[in-house]
Parts: sequence; C-alpha cells; structure tokens
Amino acid sequence: MPYGKVYLIGAGPGAQDLITMRGARLLAQADIVLYDALVTPEMLELCPQAEKVCVGKRAGQRSTAQHFINQQLVDCAARHRLVVRLKGGDPMLFGRADEELSALEAEGIDVEVVPGITTAVAAAAASKQPLTKRGVARSVAFFTSSTAPGHPEEVTIPSTDTLVQYMGGREAIATANNLLAQGRSPDTPVIVIENASRPDQRIERMTLGKLAHGLDAAHGPVLVMLGHAMAERAHQPRA
Amino acid sequence: MPYGKVYLIGAGPGAQDLITMRGARLLAQADIVLYDALVTPEMLELCPQAEKVCVGKRAGQRSTAQHFINQQLVDCAARHRLVVRLKGGDPMLFGRADEELSALEAEGIDVEVVPGITTAVAAAAASKQPLTKRGVARSVAFFTSSTAPGHPEEVTIPSTDTLVQYMGGREAIATANNLLAQGRSPDTPVIVIENASRPDQRIERMTLGKLAHGLDAAHGPVLVMLGHAMAERAHQPRA
Repeated sequence: MPYGKVYLIGAGPGAQDLITMRGARLLAQADIVLYDALVTPEMLELCPQAEKVCVGKRAGQRSTAQHFINQQLVDCAARHRLVVRLKGGDPMLFGRADEELSALEAEGIDVEVVPGITTAVAAAAASKQPLTKRGVARSVAFFTSSTAPGHPEEVTIPSTDTLVQYMGGREAIATANNLLAQGRSPDTPVIVIENASRPDQRIERMTLGKLAHGLDAAHGPVLVMLGHAMAERAHQPRA
Repeated sequence: MPYGKVYLIGAGPGAQDLITMRGARLLAQADIVLYDALVTPEMLELCPQAEKVCVGKRAGQRSTAQHFINQQLVDCAARHRLVVRLKGGDPMLFGRADEELSALEAEGIDVEVVPGITTAVAAAAASKQPLTKRGVARSVAFFTSSTAPGHPEEVTIPSTDTLVQYMGGREAIATANNLLAQGRSPDTPVIVIENASRPDQRIERMTLGKLAHGLDAAHGPVLVMLGHAMAERAHQPRA
C-alpha cells in the first residue's frame, strides 16, 4: 500500500483563529492528528472528524520521545491518507521539524510544511511592540538556552538590536546578568509574555536591571523580548 | 463622531490561504483596506466589499510616504467603522508598524495588531529547511541592511547560528563577503528564496562562497537564509 501524505502544521500561539486558513482546512480534512503538549484544546476543535493522538514531550525525556514520534509518523502514513503533525507556534522554529522530516523522507513519504505564527510574532502583536523599528532596531534574534538536563551548555547571546528568548524562565535571568556584564544598560526595556493570544495571557513590562533580579512566578514557559524597540510609546495604552 | 477601530494585519507571504483565520475574517468585515505594494492581488479577493487603497511604498520616497500613510489611517478611522491596514508578512517585523501605531494612539484611536506569517518562516516551510536544528542551530537572526538612498550605514552581521537577511539582493553579497572575511567557511550552506509561497516561487541552494560571487538576476527582493541548519538532508527531494 502506498503511503499517505503528512503535513507538518504550525498551530500558532494558541488562539484558535491564529492558525492559517491552509492549516485549518487541512486539519478539517485530516484522518489523524498527532499534536504536541503545547497545542491548545481549542485547536483540536478544528478537526472533530480526526483521530487525535497527543505526542507531547516534556523536558527530560525529549530524545527518547522524539524517536517514537518519528516512528509514529511513519506508521500513521502507512495507515492513513492524510496525516497532520500539529505543533505549537511554527514547525521550523524550535520545533524539531528536521528530525521528523528526515524520518519521513527516508521512507519516501510525501511531506509538506504549513507555517504557523511563531510565539515572538504573536507576542509582538499582543504587546503592540514591534520587533524592529526604524532607526532603533533593524535586527532581531530568536534564541533559546534550554538544554537537556545534565547537559548544560555555554549560551552565546546574539548581537542583535532586539533579543527574544524562547522558553526563558530562569534562563532569561541568566541572560539579563550576562548582558549587564557585557555593558548593556540596566534601563534597556524588557517585556515578559506568558501565553500570548490566550485568555490567560500575561504581559509584564520591566527593565533589564529588574529582570536580572528575577521574575514573578510564571505558570509556564515565558517569552522575553528585550531591546530599545520595546520602549513604551508616548500614548500607548497599557496592555 | 467617535473614531472607528483600526486593525494592522499581517497578510503573510502572498498565498491567499497563508493569512490567519482572524485576518481573513476581519478583511471580510472591513469598510476600507489600505494595503502595501507587497500585498498580492489574491489577498484583496478576501475583502470584495471593502474600499481598497494602495499605499505602496517604494525605496527612495519612504519617509514622505510613511507620513502620509499615518495621516490617511487617522482620516480613515474618522470616516469608517472598521479600517484594515494590510501589510505583507508580519506588521511587527520590518513593517514600520511602530510609526502607524504612534500616529493612531496619539489621536486616541483603538488599534489592534493581527500577526502574519513572516517571510523567513514561509521560506523555511517552502524549502523544508528548519531555522533552528537540535545540536546545530539554536539561534536565528532576521536582519536587513537596506538603507534609505544616500544614507549608507555600517551593518553589523548578527552572531547567530542561522542568519536570515530580508530584502537581500546585492546586500546579501556584501554580507557573504563580510562573513568570509570573518572566517566563516565558504562551504556554509545558503538558500536564496524569491516569492516564497507564490506561483513564481524560486528556491536556489548554494554555498557562502558562491553567494559571495553574486546572484542570478532576481525579479524582486530575495530572502537569504544561511547557516548549517540549511544543509540538505540525505533523502530530501529537490524543492
């Protein structure tokens, strides 16, 4: 039997209507949907007809889980016509898409990627704060310092005007201290966002100096945006 | 009369179904749509009921045009209930959103931002090449070296694992030469993409060494992705 087709689809930040029209259409046609722990329940309402399988990963058992997810995708493509692999944000940014693409291509399975709204872009929209700004910021970096437990690594902080740290809880505090040690001003504006676009979205404005002293308790991973493009505008309403 | 509401909406890379569901719904409700030169005609089919105004900018007259666009947005909000400002890609990334938000907020006009698929993310999907990759690339920078004519600026190339240069025609060749001078390997994989997601999409794989020697003629601005995450996979079909 020939293999079905697999779509790696970005679900976006969580709000149901922030997926692309293409992503929503394919979800509605899917035979089976393998989704991450980061995908919100309302996204799954877009595929009532499909079999739904949570393949959520948790820190600490990532590598093992990824191997099984790859195999599951191949098995699904052998049994189904239209397989969707649904990932929070965008598949190509911190999404381990390469490993899944490799596994599928090695079997000769047809696979397509549908982009999604990555968290940084959703956070910029939610906070109404641009990632680039004329005369102020013409470059932005997305990075993470999350490492597998037991494998700490030295993280190089990018040299861009705007910095966005994904999955940045305690790691963001380390970043702040490093930036201060490198001479960045403690007044540099910072925005910390949790659950961008979701009903429990939380947006906090602070400075680099304050971030270095810690974060309030967050319920999940936060996104930290940092740089002069994050400065509040004169008439900006509070988010 | 009270002002209407203004939505800054990201149209995405050009394919009609790569806008978000939220963006499409608001377009279908809009009284008037002010759109960029980068917005494709098929996106405007999503708002047949709306008055449509092209406020496209061309290099060389940007600042003047931006001033007029800001004023046009305020004028539209005074006359209409639902105003859409439609921008190619995402409004918060190289979109001059900050200036439009400032102008609207100064008048007390209610404004919301709807994120869009930025070109880099669409290009990653189209080429099936991830921007980050476990053990290879954990940071990515989006940058531009485009400057107003007559105002050349020194461009610092970010220090991330993956580099994405927006609007990178001749500028990308300069970037390549700078990176080689800094010691990056001429074998570093590069992908050059034009019109990602559109019928005339063009994807070209090369190396940093080849990029330094020039690009084939392109019909419009290209996006250049660079770094070891761009390496071709063993079984990857040609795009």
